[in-house]
Amino acid sequence: MAGYELEPIGRVESALTDLESAPRQGDEGAPDAWLAIDEAMAPGLRDLAIGDEVIVLTWLDRGRRDELTTHPRGDQNRPVQGVFSTRSPDRPNPIGLHTVVILAIEGTRLRVRNLEAIDRTPILDIKPILEPRSER
Amino acid sequence: MAGYELEPIGRVESALTDLESAPRQGDEGAPDAWLAIDEAMAPGLRDLAIGDEVIVLTWLDRGRRDELTTHPRGDQNRPVQGVFSTRSPDRPNPIGLHTVVILAIEGTRLRVRNLEAIDRTPILDIKPILEPRSER
Repeated sequence: MAGYELEPIGRVESALTDLESAPRQGDEGAPDAWLAIDEAMAPGLRDLAIGDEVIVLTWLDRGRRDELTTHPRGDQNRPVQGVFSTRSPDRPNPIGLHTVVILAIEGTRLRVRNLEAIDRTPILDIKPILEPRSER
Repeated sequence: MAGYELEPIGRVESALTDLESAPRQGDEGAPDAWLAIDEAMAPGLRDLAIGDEVIVLTWLDRGRRDELTTHPRGDQNRPVQGVFSTRSPDRPNPIGLHTVVILAIEGTRLRVRNLEAIDRTPILDIKPILEPRSER
């Protein structure tokens, strides 16, 4: 199973410290935050630039991995849905996807806009948005 | 580290059987393919429907996890870039993101259009596209 083990590349540093205050999606008032990437990852970051729109992948380590159905947005008044048709953090592999814009770069620390992830969330990957899909 | 271990929810079934014949991105001729999801995941799939556009997350298990720089698209004539500004499968946590449309559903098997992933690739998650970002 070694091939299926994640190695976080860094952590989120954010004013969001609990799930209750976390907005449901990034455009509902999530604060700007830092991606504190490990120094060892510096060569991988070198072509990222201020203004780039990227997808940040996180590990939603408070997600309940045994849940296959959920009330969307945690609202008990909404009908239960299968988790694969929702963005709930409760799912078998709780990987979060966050589309953000890079606001500043300080060494291996990236300041990003509107990140819906609580403080200390492990970061797994950063990928460019492909538009048009011409790069890999 | 138990919290960082991935548990695939299924496998890709595709006519693509090697990296050489795999297109670089899904719109460059990737074939339709099946997502063969484990029966145990059925409750999580129940609200997915034909025509839905979803993001499939895969584990690119042939990726080289120790690479932090790469020639984009494997082209030695292109200048080296940091992996986090590319979609290279060679990266510390080789998670693939694939935007696809569901063409058919047979039990826990989903037929999808244009999937750039080779046969037997482990599937980690399925998420809806959020547009507008109103759901979670």
